[in-house]
Amino acid sequence: MIIILKPGAAQNEIQTVYEAVRRYNVIVQDIKGENTSMIGLAGDTSAIPREAIERFGCVERVMKVQEAYKLAGRRFHPGDTVVECRGAKLGGGRFAVMAGPCSVETEEQILSVAQEIKRAGASFLRGGAFKPRSSPYAFQGLGLDGLELLVIARQKTGLPIVTELMSAEHLDAFARDVDVIQIGARNMQNFSLLKEVGGLKKPVLLKRGLSSTIEELLMAAEYLMAGGCTDVMLCERGIRTFETATRNTLDLSAVPVLKEKTHLPVVVDPSHATGRWALVPSMALAAVASGADGLIIEVHNSPETALCDGAQSITPHVFRDLMAKIGKVLDALKEE
Amino acid sequence: MIIILKPGAAQNEIQTVYEAVRRYNVIVQDIKGENTSMIGLAGDTSAIPREAIERFGCVERVMKVQEAYKLAGRRFHPGDTVVECRGAKLGGGRFAVMAGPCSVETEEQILSVAQEIKRAGASFLRGGAFKPRSSPYAFQGLGLDGLELLVIARQKTGLPIVTELMSAEHLDAFARDVDVIQIGARNMQNFSLLKEVGGLKKPVLLKRGLSSTIEELLMAAEYLMAGGCTDVMLCERGIRTFETATRNTLDLSAVPVLKEKTHLPVVVDPSHATGRWALVPSMALAAVASGADGLIIEVHNSPETALCDGAQSITPHVFRDLMAKIGKVLDALKEE
Amino acid sequence: MIIILKPGAAQNEIQTVYEAVRRYNVIVQDIKGENTSMIGLAGDTSAIPREAIERFGCVERVMKVQEAYKLAGRRFHPGDTVVECRGAKLGGGRFAVMAGPCSVETEEQILSVAQEIKRAGASFLRGGAFKPRSSPYAFQGLGLDGLELLVIARQKTGLPIVTELMSAEHLDAFARDVDVIQIGARNMQNFSLLKEVGGLKKPVLLKRGLSSTIEELLMAAEYLMAGGCTDVMLCERGIRTFETATRNTLDLSAVPVLKEKTHLPVVVDPSHATGRWALVPSMALAAVASGADGLIIEVHNSPETALCDGAQSITPHVFRDLMAKIGKVLDALKEE
Amino acid sequence: MIIILKPGAAQNEIQTVYEAVRRYNVIVQDIKGENTSMIGLAGDTSAIPREAIERFGCVERVMKVQEAYKLAGRRFHPGDTVVECRGAKLGGGRFAVMAGPCSVETEEQILSVAQEIKRAGASFLRGGAFKPRSSPYAFQGLGLDGLELLVIARQKTGLPIVTELMSAEHLDAFARDVDVIQIGARNMQNFSLLKEVGGLKKPVLLKRGLSSTIEELLMAAEYLMAGGCTDVMLCERGIRTFETATRNTLDLSAVPVLKEKTHLPVVVDPSHATGRWALVPSMALAAVASGADGLIIEVHNSPETALCDGAQSITPHVFRDLMAKIGKVLDALKEE
Repeated sequence: MIIILKPGAAQNEIQTVYEAVRRYNVIVQDIKGENTSMIGLAGDTSAIPREAIERFGCVERVMKVQEAYKLAGRRFHPGDTVVECRGAKLGGGRFAVMAGPCSVETEEQILSVAQEIKRAGASFLRGGAFKPRSSPYAFQGLGLDGLELLVIARQKTGLPIVTELMSAEHLDAFARDVDVIQIGARNMQNFSLLKEVGGLKKPVLLKRGLSSTIEELLMAAEYLMAGGCTDVMLCERGIRTFETATRNTLDLSAVPVLKEKTHLPVVVDPSHATGRWALVPSMALAAVASGADGLIIEVHNSPETALCDGAQSITPHVFRDLMAKIGKVLDALKEE
Repeated sequence: MIIILKPGAAQNEIQTVYEAVRRYNVIVQDIKGENTSMIGLAGDTSAIPREAIERFGCVERVMKVQEAYKLAGRRFHPGDTVVECRGAKLGGGRFAVMAGPCSVETEEQILSVAQEIKRAGASFLRGGAFKPRSSPYAFQGLGLDGLELLVIARQKTGLPIVTELMSAEHLDAFARDVDVIQIGARNMQNFSLLKEVGGLKKPVLLKRGLSSTIEELLMAAEYLMAGGCTDVMLCERGIRTFETATRNTLDLSAVPVLKEKTHLPVVVDPSHATGRWALVPSMALAAVASGADGLIIEVHNSPETALCDGAQSITPHVFRDLMAKIGKVLDALKEE
Repeated sequence: MIIILKPGAAQNEIQTVYEAVRRYNVIVQDIKGENTSMIGLAGDTSAIPREAIERFGCVERVMKVQEAYKLAGRRFHPGDTVVECRGAKLGGGRFAVMAGPCSVETEEQILSVAQEIKRAGASFLRGGAFKPRSSPYAFQGLGLDGLELLVIARQKTGLPIVTELMSAEHLDAFARDVDVIQIGARNMQNFSLLKEVGGLKKPVLLKRGLSSTIEELLMAAEYLMAGGCTDVMLCERGIRTFETATRNTLDLSAVPVLKEKTHLPVVVDPSHATGRWALVPSMALAAVASGADGLIIEVHNSPETALCDGAQSITPHVFRDLMAKIGKVLDALKEE
Repeated sequence: MIIILKPGAAQNEIQTVYEAVRRYNVIVQDIKGENTSMIGLAGDTSAIPREAIERFGCVERVMKVQEAYKLAGRRFHPGDTVVECRGAKLGGGRFAVMAGPCSVETEEQILSVAQEIKRAGASFLRGGAFKPRSSPYAFQGLGLDGLELLVIARQKTGLPIVTELMSAEHLDAFARDVDVIQIGARNMQNFSLLKEVGGLKKPVLLKRGLSSTIEELLMAAEYLMAGGCTDVMLCERGIRTFETATRNTLDLSAVPVLKEKTHLPVVVDPSHATGRWALVPSMALAAVASGADGLIIEVHNSPETALCDGAQSITPHVFRDLMAKIGKVLDALKEE
């Protein structure tokens, strides 16, 4: 932590800052120049309330230096985390694809899609039972009935299931029936929910909030991990920007940045990021080339009649072709 | 709703779109020009899944025309909503200020601040018992103990209390003890929580999400109102942009835009928006001049030692001066 | 400047960084803790190429501490700059309004508007002769003919004229005929133009770019001032964000931030920021309350037939009422 | 164009709107429902001043339907444009790489880099002679001397040269010496410069502005093309967002969106987008996979001593490895 002092700050004022920070058992050092005076703090500064320090009259600014995510960060955990789930592996060089419809609609629909995506090479079945919709009047998902249909699809295909949890009310059902609990973008900073889910110690797919920084995503993962969860998969799914040609802006540079900062696997969702099915294949391939550990893709057997997000779902046919290309790109990227 | 067709779309393809939309009992009209063909839909189009329509091969784009917030919108409810709470009024020409510390720390602290802000003219006491913090290692608030201290402060001052609910787990305590339930920016689209809170039929202060559009804020209010809540106060508290000189960018033009679109009162939070106490007075005055119905301001008797958000809290002394200026600006704006 | 080293950096590597920075005649100090090592640099670090330092293998990050705007900054020039122009004053407690049509259309139009706004209390006449339009097929302004009409309007009313320069080609004409040269948002970082205009030593109204930070705005002013210009007025005119309810998002907190950092006057443009005339009065008043030194407002006698930006122009009638309210708010804000 | 009327608009008011739009020789159609009334306009609506229409009292909103880029758009020019330049081809299935240092520093440096990148497979040499720098005190490039060094490098290697033009002052020199004129992000809406450059009819590399929409980028291309230029290459180089982990956010979904909307080739600049050399290879590969027609990459033989942008330049060695991988990914993507 670096404390930058205002020019011409009085010595007795500066003294009060010294006293405030010394309590925290850190190494304090002066850096003085002609026009700038700074105080450098080294050691464990995580407990120092930066904002309160900024409140001292003689302080211009306080800059953080250390990262605050000890469990999610690579610093103390250099090796890649590999998430294993009913035989499927994701992370540490194991690439995997999650696919399925935006929302579970009928047994027939979910079974048919599950079989199609399995045949094409997907390793996880995704499908929404509880749907976060911006309008209270829109279809909100089948709820627990949807969960049951997912379980049936798992029985028939062996694919582990990924589905979104929106409320602690359904924790028990999810603990029992779901393989990978998805935390949606809108709940990425629902800290109460993160604490509860962390305690389940099940694999979690944590989606980046629409306007969350990479650091905030890592801090949300830290909430899960501080609760005991070890298998967190981070998901880049587009951020909100001024551009309106796509629903969100897929931030693929987040992939190599995350791979640098954390040992957790990184998954990319080109369907929600773009909001348009025709852009999904190229963005999926770009995600693979950027170094992602996995993809999550919406596939629907009849997008025109889908109860939600039809515009962004690809058909099983398009998915099959895409999986073939993904395989080729993965091969091309392999180090010899 | 307007459906824009691709140039050169085949007539039989267009026919399938007609069939799809006719089911919804809307008036369908063709608009044909040399290079563009469109289909105009009038009537109640709220049930038509826009995204699925965009999936048709011959459709280029679908544009929404109607607003989706029937209860929050001014269209069917032209008069201003006035929120009343233990004698305090906010909205429809009644300006009111909510003030207090970021978090409740001790009985002495909350009592002292409550008395100070009351004397200066505030009408509501705000204070955090449950705190959403981006780090799991940061102070998370006193929880239910904090709620008790707020109740004591209300007994002593008569000020209604405003505090944030982060989880449905505490619904009963909030229903019993809290006057205005605050939904924080990070939970603005926690739809499960919105549904539960809406059912309480208590006044709610709904904060705009960091990257939520004005329309999404209104849709979140619609969730509360669809559940039975009538007294929703909307709160502009800064949006996330590229600018880093302030914590967020206070979007004051949201105030007149909201006043146009909705009958609900609009409150501005200059403390969280700017993140720096020195900017709070000027932004508070600007909010008043922009037409806001109220303000929510962080006041702390000792910001340097505050357990959170010290950098953005003003002292009771600064608050007193600000209240005097706010009074003068309100007078200046009065229509004769 | 603070250089943060990677954990476990080898001493000989760190040595090469020392050597690189010592050349710049700065004070170099070590800050060492358990997990972090930093190098603090004090003195004049403006010549050190931060990016090249970040390229060293053992360097994690480099943080700037000093501001780079010596001429625009308050540090070495604490007193407010007041811009004077044909008797009109703006800055340092002198509030002034610039008003007029988006583009000059006819002699009759510009004369009529000029007389109206003068009567209402405006101090400068604004009007576009050269118009930056996003389409090459849109009306591009009357060019030099428009400039002539502005000169006529100045002769008749005595109001100094403010108009946008888009190309160095017209430098001579602007040097001769224009009182305040406007640099538009799209040219804020047209550094070639800034250098040429700085050399004219005339007052400049410098508009903030749509996605420019406050620091970049100050650096653009520094370009003008390094060329010899002393009378730069900075103009906040809305930044680009995700919100689409207004054309841009007016960043009023930029006003107090700028007043803190620079001695230059700050002007707010509510017309371009919002893009909708009905929002102009409330945002103008909010700007006044935020501490702005002036306003620039589009006024058109017949907005429905305006050749550009009709949607954001207010009528002379609305302007008159607004000026009266502005006067009252200014009075209310005065310190006794 | 669709004109949405306010609910309850009076018939005589609506009549004035009809009259206003009928002048433009378009087909006018009513769309009436219970709560909404709209007027649909078909035909060539490009001359209708949308903003002025929004100014009518009975109009709620005006929505554009047609695209305004006739020359750049695919609608009237379905086949891909291929840019040819001294034997190098880019676009329409011909992938090409531009590489070189941020700025030309010495003859030795530019020659050495040029030879290295040619050997690795680059087709164009890029290098800055005129540098847009946010500080007036930073190195501004060698200017015309830099141009001369580029010409020498071209003579020795045969590589066509790409360099940025910042001012019309140097048009003649660029017309004579430069193969591809680069318009930088900061000048993307410098319409005066665009008009002048369009008239040269030379290939142009047009960089997307930091906060420009895809539509604005296409309109800037339209300015060049309206002036006579046919060989415009569009360059995605990162947009400004709230994320600070990378300098800008590379918007790769712009690639397939542009390929859909325009026949012009699309080039991606991973160096400026990320600002960090370590992220360049993965983003370059992702750009290839997204369907880009080319890349522009900064390569410097000694990034630690580079006069600008050292942090984002890769060494010739890293470039060679990257080119090999790019070749493999291109092969993997080929349709059989």
